[in-house]
Amino acid sequence: MVHPLITLTTDFGLKDPYVAEMKAVILRTCPDATVVDVSHEVDKFNVRMGAFILAAAAPYFPINTVHVAVVDPEVGTKRRGICIETDRACYVGPDNGLLVLAAQAQGIRHAYEIENKKLMMSEVSSTFHGRDIFASAAGHLANGLSPSSFGPEIAKFVVPKCAGPVRRKGAIAGEVIHVDDFGNIITNIRDGELENMGVGRSVKARLKEGEVKMPFCRAYGEVEAGKPLALIGSHGFLEIAINRGNAASVFRIKNGDAVMICRS
Amino acid sequence: MVHPLITLTTDFGLKDPYVAEMKAVILRTCPDATVVDVSHEVDKFNVRMGAFILAAAAPYFPINTVHVAVVDPEVGTKRRGICIETDRACYVGPDNGLLVLAAQAQGIRHAYEIENKKLMMSEVSSTFHGRDIFASAAGHLANGLSPSSFGPEIAKFVVPKCAGPVRRKGAIAGEVIHVDDFGNIITNIRDGELENMGVGRSVKARLKEGEVKMPFCRAYGEVEAGKPLALIGSHGFLEIAINRGNAASVFRIKNGDAVMICRS
Amino acid sequence: MVHPLITLTTDFGLKDPYVAEMKAVILRTCPDATVVDVSHEVDKFNVRMGAFILAAAAPYFPINTVHVAVVDPEVGTKRRGICIETDRACYVGPDNGLLVLAAQAQGIRHAYEIENKKLMMSEVSSTFHGRDIFASAAGHLANGLSPSSFGPEIAKFVVPKCAGPVRRKGAIAGEVIHVDDFGNIITNIRDGELENMGVGRSVKARLKEGEVKMPFCRAYGEVEAGKPLALIGSHGFLEIAINRGNAASVFRIKNGDAVMICRS
Repeated sequence: MVHPLITLTTDFGLKDPYVAEMKAVILRTCPDATVVDVSHEVDKFNVRMGAFILAAAAPYFPINTVHVAVVDPEVGTKRRGICIETDRACYVGPDNGLLVLAAQAQGIRHAYEIENKKLMMSEVSSTFHGRDIFASAAGHLANGLSPSSFGPEIAKFVVPKCAGPVRRKGAIAGEVIHVDDFGNIITNIRDGELENMGVGRSVKARLKEGEVKMPFCRAYGEVEAGKPLALIGSHGFLEIAINRGNAASVFRIKNGDAVMICRS
Repeated sequence: MVHPLITLTTDFGLKDPYVAEMKAVILRTCPDATVVDVSHEVDKFNVRMGAFILAAAAPYFPINTVHVAVVDPEVGTKRRGICIETDRACYVGPDNGLLVLAAQAQGIRHAYEIENKKLMMSEVSSTFHGRDIFASAAGHLANGLSPSSFGPEIAKFVVPKCAGPVRRKGAIAGEVIHVDDFGNIITNIRDGELENMGVGRSVKARLKEGEVKMPFCRAYGEVEAGKPLALIGSHGFLEIAINRGNAASVFRIKNGDAVMICRS
Repeated sequence: MVHPLITLTTDFGLKDPYVAEMKAVILRTCPDATVVDVSHEVDKFNVRMGAFILAAAAPYFPINTVHVAVVDPEVGTKRRGICIETDRACYVGPDNGLLVLAAQAQGIRHAYEIENKKLMMSEVSSTFHGRDIFASAAGHLANGLSPSSFGPEIAKFVVPKCAGPVRRKGAIAGEVIHVDDFGNIITNIRDGELENMGVGRSVKARLKEGEVKMPFCRAYGEVEAGKPLALIGSHGFLEIAINRGNAASVFRIKNGDAVMICRS
């Protein structure tokens, strides 16, 4: 028997009861659901980071997974709650761009505003829609409810501005889109763009604190421990790393910093 | 098919194998159980914080959920293990007040001492009753065992001292009962008490470092980013927050600190 | 109905989508699996710590559990992926010693190299075998696949060097094998070795910063809060602790440090 699958991506952290309350509401609505945590350690209020993490994980989940994401500093204000239906999945959360990166990659079919109070908790707190609206909605979707039950179809929703990398003469100017827990520096520069540039066995990376030449590798272990390298990471983005070290801390890099990659 | 539901609340953290060992024992005893983590980041040995988190989450879980909680500095000494049966759920853990806040809110029917060795692991460590006694007990309850199987009914158990807020002339003197991962300052002052006081559109909060006037809002986003506000949080308690900021760190507040709320 | 059980032990942390991607691949392969996290907070690249944590948790899981562990600094290099079959369980991960401590304790039957591409993701990243090879393998094992399907049986695999404690005149020279989240100092000295030494009601521990005399107890709460004690912890190892305190931080001890235990 296949259990309906629901994922959670939030900036709630794991200390408080908030994530458990969302799971409780989901399991009350759909007792047979399997709930998988994507991350609850998104930096507080960082919608862009939440969007990246959700978009990284979503493609690996089976068809018909329901993804709930809550990085929601405007909870309780006029911002809407939405449900986006794609060719493979449903996304539930605030209308602030959080869901769109993942949903667009799968082909958006329809989007709906969530306003049907019958599909929410009987009392809706103005500070915790994750529990009272989105978890409840996810449980109903997992039970087979049609997304169109939530409210009117909407043609527009907030789409995050994602500046792509910019090609320059013999170089690409990109941006750090994520620093992972190993300190690997993940940029918005994709595999194909480096090929077009004709990158060879090494690259020069212009970072905040200067220029670093490093080999272009397939695996972290191809350089000595403590040495920098560039590679295409497991999501298809150019990554700057230090074998068995923490590149972000050595190069003092954080999310959003500029990176320029040059032929070497 | 509905799976029996078991929740875990501990101060174990997530680095060590301890939580997994509890889940292993649960699944060995009741292979069909669904286990939900409430929190494993309760401050070490802080029974009061564990009690607050469990009491916050428990009401959202379906009927017949089994809640296991282990913040247990006296493990292996004379303190008893108990099982409390309420109108909606069962609670399993040490007799140190940890379970009582959540259980009282649901109406306590019976409480039993856990002493039946047949319902424990065959070897009981004197330092890890969470695994060898409580997880095993939870698995048996999830299998449908009656709580009265654990041992004699007990009339008395440790009840935590919870001083409520005190009404003064035009003010309420309360206490910080939780600082959440966002830095929101959650007090023991309830919704109704503020209404009785006739709080208007703003309040004055007397905190450790001085008096702060702030609007009384419904949502964090009703003030500008970086500005303080008061609101009733998602569990019905007065909360002092900073929109997109960390109020506890700005106001240097920690769990247990005094807070006085005045009309403004 | 019993769900196939799969555990995960990694150094990935919980911020990134990596753990969720492994679970997604598992659930795509074996939708009915129950996945239990052992730990994702193994110190980065610390194979020995991962091996200890996995070996501590594994004995508590039911028969036929599949254990996946990924602390894998050499991912994408020539190091092999392996599957070890024991009398009770299967272990999947890199051939760097991570799996062996747990597997040896259960009796190793066979070990296989994982090289059958049909049992991997269709595209295998050179930086994330946890997702593309090991999670996929675990899903297949949970579906009942024989470990021999992965590739050739191997007679040799990397076995971690574990120096046991050394008996000296009236003393045992051991090593810290784990510092847990409470700051308890767990040594590689086992229960029986102390008995042989004739330890009485107290011991002297020679630590980095000097000699400390402490009672030999059964439970943390047998000494006053703030006082040191020695006891046999819940996995059968001698532990040095401080009641309601953090022994590792008070005595400035870290994993790998030497400890000498003397009669007192």
